[in-house]
Amino acid sequence: MSPIDLNNIPIIDLDSFTHETIFKQGDKYWFFEKSEDAFPGQAFGLEINQILYHTKSQFQDILIFKSLSFGNVLVLNGIIQCTEKDEFAYQELITHLPVMSHPNPTKALVIGGGDCGVIRELIKHVELGTIESITMVEIDDMVIQLSTKFLPEMAKYHNHPKVNLIIDDGFKFLKSTQEKFDIIITDSSDPEGPAEEFFQINYFKLLLNALQKDGIVIMQSSENIWLNLSYLKNLLKKAKTIFKNVKYSQCYMPSYTSGSLGLIIATNDELKDVTKPLRKLKPSLEANLFKYYNSNIHQSSFVLPTWAQNELKN
Amino acid sequence: MSPIDLNNIPIIDLDSFTHETIFKQGDKYWFFEKSEDAFPGQAFGLEINQILYHTKSQFQDILIFKSLSFGNVLVLNGIIQCTEKDEFAYQELITHLPVMSHPNPTKALVIGGGDCGVIRELIKHVELGTIESITMVEIDDMVIQLSTKFLPEMAKYHNHPKVNLIIDDGFKFLKSTQEKFDIIITDSSDPEGPAEEFFQINYFKLLLNALQKDGIVIMQSSENIWLNLSYLKNLLKKAKTIFKNVKYSQCYMPSYTSGSLGLIIATNDELKDVTKPLRKLKPSLEANLFKYYNSNIHQSSFVLPTWAQNELKN
Repeated sequence: MSPIDLNNIPIIDLDSFTHETIFKQGDKYWFFEKSEDAFPGQAFGLEINQILYHTKSQFQDILIFKSLSFGNVLVLNGIIQCTEKDEFAYQELITHLPVMSHPNPTKALVIGGGDCGVIRELIKHVELGTIESITMVEIDDMVIQLSTKFLPEMAKYHNHPKVNLIIDDGFKFLKSTQEKFDIIITDSSDPEGPAEEFFQINYFKLLLNALQKDGIVIMQSSENIWLNLSYLKNLLKKAKTIFKNVKYSQCYMPSYTSGSLGLIIATNDELKDVTKPLRKLKPSLEANLFKYYNSNIHQSSFVLPTWAQNELKN
Repeated sequence: MSPIDLNNIPIIDLDSFTHETIFKQGDKYWFFEKSEDAFPGQAFGLEINQILYHTKSQFQDILIFKSLSFGNVLVLNGIIQCTEKDEFAYQELITHLPVMSHPNPTKALVIGGGDCGVIRELIKHVELGTIESITMVEIDDMVIQLSTKFLPEMAKYHNHPKVNLIIDDGFKFLKSTQEKFDIIITDSSDPEGPAEEFFQINYFKLLLNALQKDGIVIMQSSENIWLNLSYLKNLLKKAKTIFKNVKYSQCYMPSYTSGSLGLIIATNDELKDVTKPLRKLKPSLEANLFKYYNSNIHQSSFVLPTWAQNELKN
């Protein structure tokens, strides 16, 4: 993959730009996130100030725009990956849930995560002296390059000395690696396009194989309790055939479908209670490091409304 | 107000119907909730199957449609009030938070609540032998009439013998009433249109005046932490000048802006901790009565991300 010339990005004229997610209403242009398969009949819209970049990479359609009220927005295959306004909620929860539930996490692996937001959060634990090495395996180098330009608050640590960045298929990496990790974070896109395999039982087996005995894995489910609850139930069932201890947590933020995104957190340690932080930081330090995560948020992220809890339990 | 002939509602042809919230995209019609004042640059969209009713009442624009995936939807002045898919989340939380925090709630007042969902939830406590009388003051009788037709699972108890339904301005009612209530629920629409006064300090004074000494009031804030945090902070500040004990809770559901709606719960009893249920039902009974509310949801609804918690505390 040759590098993009980030200093010479052509200006895109919004009036002549066309994309299946973009619609003109009155004199304004709106991006609408829709999916007839994943969430038929509902849409989330953001008003566009400027198109920053559009390309079809080897793997996916990449659209980046400046929105009126959510900052810069990264869209892969028509689905919002992150917005500058609220990205910290997801990045913090998916990272600190497993790290703060582990007694001594030193080696972390990130599968996906091309916007580099998870790495930014993991580096906080490097600086605290806990995590010693981070491996990140992202299939699409273009996402990383573009994030350094358009999401500079997220993509700033992929060249950090403790980060080993590998541009490759996460599936392939897991098949061949001999390493064992304390924490594995699957920060994939949704299961259309390159991320499809990440939601299958074979993937869960590979994760378990690359995990230390007391290791913890977390993955975004691409679901929430308001969407396809039976798909989610099935995904949890699959995970439970591989891991002895599987829990479901939700992150609440406006730019994900229905205002929330489910996370599946799993370990083979039956006795571990991942719903409560095992390690605690001093409250003042915690408030300094994190904007979203705190120990109460950790616990409440696992609390579900009765109907969803009953459905997922069965 | 003469009754609407609910048995002879004319069929509306979607192709020739126009409304500022409705747009055609491809061969489909979508409703988009937008507000340049309240939440500029973001929109929530629902695909429309059928327009069920549209009118401008004496007070507001009323639009009811059948959506593809959220059931029937009630829209007032362009803002979603409820959808059949997820209404239970809001109705349950705004009702059971105060009722389950009160040692002995017998008299309840609802201001607004024309869809009658809050009454449905209060009737559960009538049947449990706790609440003895419910007064509901709704300004727009048309909303009630139309809800009986198009939201039949919500609007079914306004003629219940324990319900005293008053068609009037809630503000006017509170000014003249001599009654004192244990629970007051303000289920208003957003502060544009007839509900504007419900977000002012004079309204809070009237609420306090109509409240028993140990009474609890709850009101929807029309805000959430992701929207206008400084407006929300200001609203809480106003409430704190009148009530000694003010807390902020969030309900998470897809059809409200940003996927959440804030509730302000207040009492003049300094020692009362409304963040934990004071009364508990047997878990099996609780699970039978409620789909959303449970005692863990009660507590976690008050848990906020660090940045929002700090902002609202100051």
